[in-house]
Amino acid sequence: MGRWQPNARGRLEQAALELYGERGFEQTTVAEIAKRAGLTERTFFRHFADKREVLFAGGVMLEDLLVRAIADAPDSTTPIEATIAALEGAGALLQERRERSRQRQAVIDANAELRERELIKLATLASALAGALRRRGVTDLAASLTAEAGIAIFKVAFERWIKETNEKELPQIIRESLDELKAVTAGK
Amino acid sequence: MGRWQPNARGRLEQAALELYGERGFEQTTVAEIAKRAGLTERTFFRHFADKREVLFAGGVMLEDLLVRAIADAPDSTTPIEATIAALEGAGALLQERRERSRQRQAVIDANAELRERELIKLATLASALAGALRRRGVTDLAASLTAEAGIAIFKVAFERWIKETNEKELPQIIRESLDELKAVTAGK
Repeated sequence: MGRWQPNARGRLEQAALELYGERGFEQTTVAEIAKRAGLTERTFFRHFADKREVLFAGGVMLEDLLVRAIADAPDSTTPIEATIAALEGAGALLQERRERSRQRQAVIDANAELRERELIKLATLASALAGALRRRGVTDLAASLTAEAGIAIFKVAFERWIKETNEKELPQIIRESLDELKAVTAGK
Repeated sequence: MGRWQPNARGRLEQAALELYGERGFEQTTVAEIAKRAGLTERTFFRHFADKREVLFAGGVMLEDLLVRAIADAPDSTTPIEATIAALEGAGALLQERRERSRQRQAVIDANAELRERELIKLATLASALAGALRRRGVTDLAASLTAEAGIAIFKVAFERWIKETNEKELPQIIRESLDELKAVTAGK
């Protein structure tokens, strides 16, 4: 019967990212995360199934967001535009979480198992986008290629955004990456 | 001091694919693979580190082949053309192994751990292609996007080739997928 804890989830996430960065993902326990956040383990498990889910829960939300944005795009929108607009929307949200995104990426880069999980997340995302495009009446081949191209753009743009020292915003980098992909596929 | 066994490697691969298909990957032992191939376990381990490597050794060869083809392309060749030509070359080799490729894919599709390994292989391949393009003087962004686009095309084309009942050849499906990617990124 614990008291209601304002923003418990956000505090747990922050504490987890700090500890993963300081000690490594493997070496951090749920008990330590809860303690750093000033909360109980029980509260942790009300929000996350395990310490890995702290890093990947956002991916589920992202998938849902992208799929709905593609479904909601006007009928006249082309598949690639619907996909890129959805990614720009997600990019705008991530922009608000730039520091956390950086912390999270550093944790993932440092751990082979987490890097694998991230690849699986991206592959799942590509399948979900292709499904959303097919439901708009896009053919199988075009849906798969558009979804894969969208994820490729997102991946490359995200890496640039995380690493770059200049302050370009993620949605802008996504748009520029699409323009670059158009140029390279055209053979220029 | 075993006798020389003609095409031991090919026989081991064939036996492994049959057994993985019949019993499942997890349930098959190296002893059974060797027995089916009419060879010893010792011979198996001279060719493969473990039973998983039977499925993934080809990927190392593929990477090497693609990286060298990109390096060897004439200076005037654009990045996307160098990449697609390399993939078509690999596709022509895989075309000779269509039945084995089908068997292999069925084994991988049936096992979550193998599917993860396959995703890692593709991500590694994308990094290797981007590296080969950078060494041709292609900028970071263009190299990453071209490599990711190439892998996306290869992945989608391979899936079609494996599944399709018609007899289109893999290099042709790769070329058609590039044309389709050009059309979708142009927003058509």
